[in-house]
Amino acid sequence: MTSITTRQWLLNSRPTGAPILDGPDATFSLTTTTLPPLQPNQVLIRVKYISNDPAQRQWISTTVAPERFYLPPLSLGAPMKCSLLGEVVASTSTAFPPSTLVTSALGEWSEHVILDAAVCNPAPAADGGIAPTHFLGALGLTGLAAYYGTAIVAAAKPADTVVVSGAAGATGSMVVQIAKKLLGCARVVGIAGGAAKCAWVKGTLGADECVDYKAASFADDLAAATPDFVDVYFDNVGGEVLDLMLARMKMRGRVAVCGSMATYNAYEDGTRLRNWFEVVAMRLQLTGFVVLDWLHKAPETIAELVRAAQEGKIVLGDENEMVLETAFESKIWENG
Amino acid sequence: MTSITTRQWLLNSRPTGAPILDGPDATFSLTTTTLPPLQPNQVLIRVKYISNDPAQRQWISTTVAPERFYLPPLSLGAPMKCSLLGEVVASTSTAFPPSTLVTSALGEWSEHVILDAAVCNPAPAADGGIAPTHFLGALGLTGLAAYYGTAIVAAAKPADTVVVSGAAGATGSMVVQIAKKLLGCARVVGIAGGAAKCAWVKGTLGADECVDYKAASFADDLAAATPDFVDVYFDNVGGEVLDLMLARMKMRGRVAVCGSMATYNAYEDGTRLRNWFEVVAMRLQLTGFVVLDWLHKAPETIAELVRAAQEGKIVLGDENEMVLETAFESKIWENG
Repeated sequence: MTSITTRQWLLNSRPTGAPILDGPDATFSLTTTTLPPLQPNQVLIRVKYISNDPAQRQWISTTVAPERFYLPPLSLGAPMKCSLLGEVVASTSTAFPPSTLVTSALGEWSEHVILDAAVCNPAPAADGGIAPTHFLGALGLTGLAAYYGTAIVAAAKPADTVVVSGAAGATGSMVVQIAKKLLGCARVVGIAGGAAKCAWVKGTLGADECVDYKAASFADDLAAATPDFVDVYFDNVGGEVLDLMLARMKMRGRVAVCGSMATYNAYEDGTRLRNWFEVVAMRLQLTGFVVLDWLHKAPETIAELVRAAQEGKIVLGDENEMVLETAFESKIWENG
Repeated sequence: MTSITTRQWLLNSRPTGAPILDGPDATFSLTTTTLPPLQPNQVLIRVKYISNDPAQRQWISTTVAPERFYLPPLSLGAPMKCSLLGEVVASTSTAFPPSTLVTSALGEWSEHVILDAAVCNPAPAADGGIAPTHFLGALGLTGLAAYYGTAIVAAAKPADTVVVSGAAGATGSMVVQIAKKLLGCARVVGIAGGAAKCAWVKGTLGADECVDYKAASFADDLAAATPDFVDVYFDNVGGEVLDLMLARMKMRGRVAVCGSMATYNAYEDGTRLRNWFEVVAMRLQLTGFVVLDWLHKAPETIAELVRAAQEGKIVLGDENEMVLETAFESKIWENG
């Protein structure tokens, strides 16, 4: 095998607010490096797609102490981590011969990457309206987070009213559909930013209602959309939306805490909860979770989601664009 | 029965910050009123002791909507509610003849009060170092809240490290002892305000450590007192202490949310949680609770606590003074 050079994005600087695109403090820097020879049971992958998820914002800088974070922290100067989908172009693994399509949750923002075969999976067959990229989103970690958070952590039941924030995003769009179409929840309400996203959440995903958090009337709209209050809140955003939602929960309501996008770029502000006493008065339960805890169930869950998509029960949106918009934009490229 | 007049404190104005002692906006006003004749199955009580608990601050004004509060809201102009201990001086109930000592969780800040016999209980025998007033505190609602929050909501186990805020208060002082002496928790750490309270929590109540939240070094002291992190946090105060504690919890730690005293007089500030993402990263579970949900177990629990006190396992402090200091001061009187 000839020596391979690749371009890759490195973590150059830890942002304290929004990621910085240019200049000496730019969050990422583009470099070209020569990859080492393959060790046994490794694959060289030509990357076709990389993921850009809200969770990645926490990987590059977070107020959580490194030893308390759910993954080893990304070092300064290291290639940015991501999920990827790519084609094996060289291999010392019998499991993944050249030309195999693979996915991995331990990819990098690189054109070529060397991974241990143990952290790769064969890319599932993509047909019946399913695109390979869906395995980086709706059928990847974000979709799985939606599934476990809704079905297990919050234990949504058919009689329940479910609200999800970030409803047009990678995770939220699946929560809406898992709650409404797979679990048969009585009422599902999305929260999203802007009329276009709200129309998509209602019209395409099938939410009973979707409330625009950018509207001046948001608090009133949210109350109007939840007249009988809420059994389950799937929280992707934290911040003011969480605060308002605490006052919309039913007695013994459950909050699945998946993320707090509203504060990733504003640590010092924190999440200010004027309605915190609602937790006491209404006996609420808030439970944080990380999708990695259920990866042993992932194959069966992905199979269930694929089947639901092929039967037309759920829609697998091209949600990456929306995720980029809500989390951070950077000069990454598509190498497809 | 001759007509009885009584002095009583009425709710005159709902405070938005600290209760107001004087002037036209005073939170409470003293009045004299004539009580009506007894209806069947009622008692006229000469009040000996009334309670003044942190929870009462929420009864007189709270940001929680009235229909979402755990008790009917106290109306303006109504007598202030409390727990009481008093002596029956007239009765139309065979259960409570005159000269019976009774307690009730539905008392009033009045010298005399008429209550339905159904909401009264015979005052338990007070001996072996137990004073009647303990049934308004350590052996009343605050002590029961400590018990159910620690043993049931947080489900503290012998191997656990338990931290409690407001550790010198009515509830917290019992949490310390229930965790350490009754449940046998491995390590119990209190948080209290000032060296004197901390010394009492350690020396008298038996906490392994007590951290002074008023010290400039509080955050460092709290970390030093919890070197192996925390399984259970019993939260009486919310606010900054809760924020710091989120970063001291172990993986899958449990927070029993009993109150948020830090914000009762400062609604607009709310509880600002910079460490909210710890809930996700460490898979924390926060559960709000109200002691009223377990009143059916109260007789057996009080009997257990009385036994523990008589055996010298736990100390029943005169915690009312501390509660007054932390919650609010008003011109109430002792009529004993």
